Amino acid sequence: MKLFKKVAIVGVGLIGGSIALAIKKKRLAYEVVGITRHKRTLSLAKKSGTIDRGSQALKIIKGADLLILATPVNTILNLAPAISKIIDSRCIVMDVGSTKEAIVAKLDKIFPQFVGAHPLAGSERRGVINASSSILEDSLCILTPTAKTSATALKMIQVFWKQLGSRVSLLTPKAHDKILSLVSHLPHLAAFSLIETIPAQYLKFSASGLKGTSRVALSDAQLWADIFLTNRKNMLNAIRGFEKNISRLKSAIKNKNKKQLISILEKARNKRERIA
Amino acid sequence: MKLFKKVAIVGVGLIGGSIALAIKKKRLAYEVVGITRHKRTLSLAKKSGTIDRGSQALKIIKGADLLILATPVNTILNLAPAISKIIDSRCIVMDVGSTKEAIVAKLDKIFPQFVGAHPLAGSERRGVINASSSILEDSLCILTPTAKTSATALKMIQVFWKQLGSRVSLLTPKAHDKILSLVSHLPHLAAFSLIETIPAQYLKFSASGLKGTSRVALSDAQLWADIFLTNRKNMLNAIRGFEKNISRLKSAIKNKNKKQLISILEKARNKRERIA
Repeated sequence: MKLFKKVAIVGVGLIGGSIALAIKKKRLAYEVVGITRHKRTLSLAKKSGTIDRGSQALKIIKGADLLILATPVNTILNLAPAISKIIDSRCIVMDVGSTKEAIVAKLDKIFPQFVGAHPLAGSERRGVINASSSILEDSLCILTPTAKTSATALKMIQVFWKQLGSRVSLLTPKAHDKILSLVSHLPHLAAFSLIETIPAQYLKFSASGLKGTSRVALSDAQLWADIFLTNRKNMLNAIRGFEKNISRLKSAIKNKNKKQLISILEKARNKRERIA
Repeated sequence: MKLFKKVAIVGVGLIGGSIALAIKKKRLAYEVVGITRHKRTLSLAKKSGTIDRGSQALKIIKGADLLILATPVNTILNLAPAISKIIDSRCIVMDVGSTKEAIVAKLDKIFPQFVGAHPLAGSERRGVINASSSILEDSLCILTPTAKTSATALKMIQVFWKQLGSRVSLLTPKAHDKILSLVSHLPHLAAFSLIETIPAQYLKFSASGLKGTSRVALSDAQLWADIFLTNRKNMLNAIRGFEKNISRLKSAIKNKNKKQLISILEKARNKRERIA
């Protein structure tokens, strides 16, 4: 007996495709169907065996007992009303977006069995072509239940992610967005700003330091604009904190205050050592 | 016939040790001797075969035809006068420091056969224990000759780095420091500031984005304080440019200007794609 009968994944990109592959690898469903706007993605996803069946039309989701929303946030919001008319009211619906407060508030009202999720497994790579079940293994998945969340749906989704090889952590949507603005969204903003600051003709002198520091600036611009704007207030706070710390280092350099400079860098170094 | 008779390396850390190993691997000298302040480093460097002989005292450098200064910048400046009294005036002297303008001006006066070099091969790792000849392979080494530089010494040093597997590029010390403030020193400052901004209790939620973006914050605090201060004016300019770009993104987020946000991120993304 498998965990789900039919899983429908709306948006078969890096994350949607990786989840599909992981479901098939771990045999968690009898059937995985995919919905995508792009003909090419559909053909790639079917040919590679990422999904069993696929369509550009929504009606293929009918009969699913788990529906995963893996498109950009705005697309999720646009499609939600149409989706709710096709699926059964008992179908568990989960989104995998990078911000949670705004979207969970909306989807909680549309779907009776909704659970918000954020697998911290993305990368600067895009598309089903880069999908792999391995990106979910040993990754952290944050679930963001609310007072409205069905306990059974939450339990099923926790089991689902653990079966996929992820660790699961529960946060409120509000706490999620605040924490992620600092540990994920701010690093992306820093990388985009950093690369903007470097004149193109100097890039040929870049070594591993710049490459690593700016790798996430290869991420999709549209997707990240959405993330920054749907987490706007937390982002503005995070940026202000970042600016303050840059300014402290700038002052220490300006004032040739070596002792203070070493103290700031040493403190940052010790904190960084706490991440694996 | 080997390129050098006796190479003396002052400072047997990550870079000094890696150069020693590469010289031995490529058989570029009959003997490699190392000088270090630390007994433990000396014992490690000898036991691992990184150097043929070593000492905590400078007199072992006598008779060298290539002397490599691989200690932090301030130590180089402190030791230079004593070194110049021991070595022959025909000995080629090269430093491998991360900033060049200040140090090259000083060492040009002390050593008649001086060449400034900066192998872009460091990392956040430290010490002879992490040394490896492979970090120099396919890396870029910037040489910073001046009007005073001996053409023969420069030629020898170019051949030396190419034999070690590095590409060689020539820049004035002034151009080097300006370019490196942007492509290397600013990314380090950004990483230190970023890690400072994240509350310690949130670090457990960090994923690959933060890890990559902040990895160089594991670098040595003392070494980087020296680099920031010996490249002070360029650093202040680079920081101002960075602050301006952060501020532009902040405004676009604040004003919910999605079009502008996407345009900035897309431009940065395209520029980042130009680095391998």
